[in-house]
Amino acid sequence: MEERWLRLQSAAEVADAIRRLAIRGAPLIGVAAAYGIALELARDRAPDALERSWQGLRDARPTAVNLARAVDRVRDAVLAAPAGGRAEAALAEALAIEQEEAVASTAMARFGAELLAPARTVLTHCNTGALAAPGQGTALAVVAELHARGRLREVLATESRPLLQGARLTVWELRRRGIPHRLLVDSAAGAVIASGRVDAVLVGCDRVALNGDVANKVGTYGLALAAHAAGIPFVVVGPCSTIDPQCPSGAAIPIEERGPEEVLTVSGAPTAPAGTPVVNPAFDVTPAHLVTALVTERGVLSPPLEAAPELARA
Amino acid sequence: MEERWLRLQSAAEVADAIRRLAIRGAPLIGVAAAYGIALELARDRAPDALERSWQGLRDARPTAVNLARAVDRVRDAVLAAPAGGRAEAALAEALAIEQEEAVASTAMARFGAELLAPARTVLTHCNTGALAAPGQGTALAVVAELHARGRLREVLATESRPLLQGARLTVWELRRRGIPHRLLVDSAAGAVIASGRVDAVLVGCDRVALNGDVANKVGTYGLALAAHAAGIPFVVVGPCSTIDPQCPSGAAIPIEERGPEEVLTVSGAPTAPAGTPVVNPAFDVTPAHLVTALVTERGVLSPPLEAAPELARA
Repeated sequence: MEERWLRLQSAAEVADAIRRLAIRGAPLIGVAAAYGIALELARDRAPDALERSWQGLRDARPTAVNLARAVDRVRDAVLAAPAGGRAEAALAEALAIEQEEAVASTAMARFGAELLAPARTVLTHCNTGALAAPGQGTALAVVAELHARGRLREVLATESRPLLQGARLTVWELRRRGIPHRLLVDSAAGAVIASGRVDAVLVGCDRVALNGDVANKVGTYGLALAAHAAGIPFVVVGPCSTIDPQCPSGAAIPIEERGPEEVLTVSGAPTAPAGTPVVNPAFDVTPAHLVTALVTERGVLSPPLEAAPELARA
Repeated sequence: MEERWLRLQSAAEVADAIRRLAIRGAPLIGVAAAYGIALELARDRAPDALERSWQGLRDARPTAVNLARAVDRVRDAVLAAPAGGRAEAALAEALAIEQEEAVASTAMARFGAELLAPARTVLTHCNTGALAAPGQGTALAVVAELHARGRLREVLATESRPLLQGARLTVWELRRRGIPHRLLVDSAAGAVIASGRVDAVLVGCDRVALNGDVANKVGTYGLALAAHAAGIPFVVVGPCSTIDPQCPSGAAIPIEERGPEEVLTVSGAPTAPAGTPVVNPAFDVTPAHLVTALVTERGVLSPPLEAAPELARA
C-alpha cells in the first residue's frame, strides 16, 4: 500500500486518470473533469481545445452522470465568456463546482447523521469518502459525522473487488480518521447483515434515475437485497448532481463493462488461469423499492424524484 | 497458476492440509480424513493412534458435517475390527466412503441434469467439482452432465474470495472439460442474475439442517437472494452425507471464522493496509425458503428433510 500524488497537465491526462480509476467517485470525476477543461484552455489556445477536451473528458466513463453534467457546465460557461476570458471562465466554473460539492458533502453528512442517529454499526461498500468527492465525501461523510457525534461503534467495509476501493481507500480513510472498522470480502456482507450485527447499509451512487433506481458500484444491489431481507435501512447518499433528470429509470442507465485484467489480477498477482474470459460490469442498478432513503444536500428525498420540490434547482 | 500434487504421510499432515484448504470441499475432506486415519494406523501401532488421529482430523474444520461423519464411521469400523486387523478395517472403510461418494456424484449429476434440463446458462459459486468431491463432484457434476447432454451454453463462475476457489479451481476444471465459461467477481453475480442472463444458480453445500437450511461457502446466501428476486431456480447439490440429522436448523450450524491473512492478501499481494482488522466467515447459511431444490444421490428432496423417506438409510 502506497500513497502517491499525480500531477496531471492536460485534459488528456485527466481523462486517462479517470478512465484507469486513478481518479474515481462520481462527484470527484465531475470536478476533476471540470478542472481538466480549465487546464487545457490555459495551455492550449487552439480553437478546438474546448470541444476536444470537453468530448474527451465526457467520454472517459459512461455511468456517473456527474461527469457529463460538470463538463457541460464548464463548456456552457466558456461559450458565454468573452474571447479573452475563456480559460478564466473555465477555471471559475470548475472552482464553483468543487465548492458546491464540498458544501453538499457537509449538508449530506448532517442530514444522513440525523436520519441514522440510532445506528451503531454500519456497513459500507466501495469508497465514498474524501477520495471520492470534495469535502468529506458522500456516504463516508455521513459515517464521519456519526463518529463525530460519538454514537458509532464500528464500520464494516467491503473490499470491493475487482479494484479493492474498500480495502485500499476506505480502510485508509477510516484509519486516518480514527474510526473503528473491520474489512470483509464482498460476499461475506450478506451473512454479516443477516446476523443482526449491522444497523444500516450506507452507500454512494453514480447515477440516480427519476424513479429512484440507483446505479452504484457493482455489488450494491446484493447489499440492498440483504438489507431488505434483514429489515435494516439501505441508505444511498449523493449530491443532487448525481440525479439524472433525463433518466426515467435504471434501465436507461449505461453500465460500464470494464476489461478482464481487473478480475484476472490483484496487484499484479494472477487470480485465475491466463486468458480466462470475464464478465466485468463496474456498476449495478438497485431498484427504488429497495432504497430506504436518498440523502442529498437538500434533504432526504423519496421517489419519484421529479416530484421532489428540493430538485427545483437541480 | 500451478498444478501441484501433495504426498501426505500421516493423519497430522492430512489434518493440516484440510485446515489450510489444500484439501477442501465437504465430501472430499470427509474422504481424505477417512484415509488419514487409515494412513496413521498403518504407520503407527501405538494404542492411542486411533483416538489421536480421529480427534485431530475431526477438529480440523467445524462446518462441513461430512468430516465428522466420515471419521466417526472409520473409528466405528476400527473399533469393531479384530486387534490385528485395525489398519485394514480403516482402509476398507475409507475406500467404501470414497466409493459411495463417487457413486453419489454420478447419481446427483443425473437427477440434477433432469431437474435443470431447460437451463442454458447457469451460475455457480466456489468449487464443487472433482477437486471438491469424489467422482465429478456435486454442483459441477450436474454442470458437466448438462454439458454432456448438449444443452448448456455457458457457465458463469464466481471467483469466490477470499481463497478464489472459483477462479483457481472451477475455471481450471471447466477448461479441462471444454465447458464454455466466464469468470466474474462475487459481487457482480447479483447484477448478472438480475439481467435475465442466468437460468439457474447451482451450488454445493457443507452442511444441510433438517429444516432445509443450507450452510455453504460464504456468498451463497447473497446468490440465493438474487435468484429469488429474479425468479430463477436456486439449486443445492450435495450427497446425503452432507445432511446432518442432529441439526434442526441453520442456527445450530457452527460457522468457521478464518484468519485475516486470507482477506488481506491475494497470492501474497496485499489488498489493504497491513494490520487491518477483518471479519472472515468461511460460510453462510441460506434459509430453506430460498432453496428451490436439494439434489442428492437419492433424488430431489424437499424440506423438512426428516420426513423424506429417501433419508431412511442416511
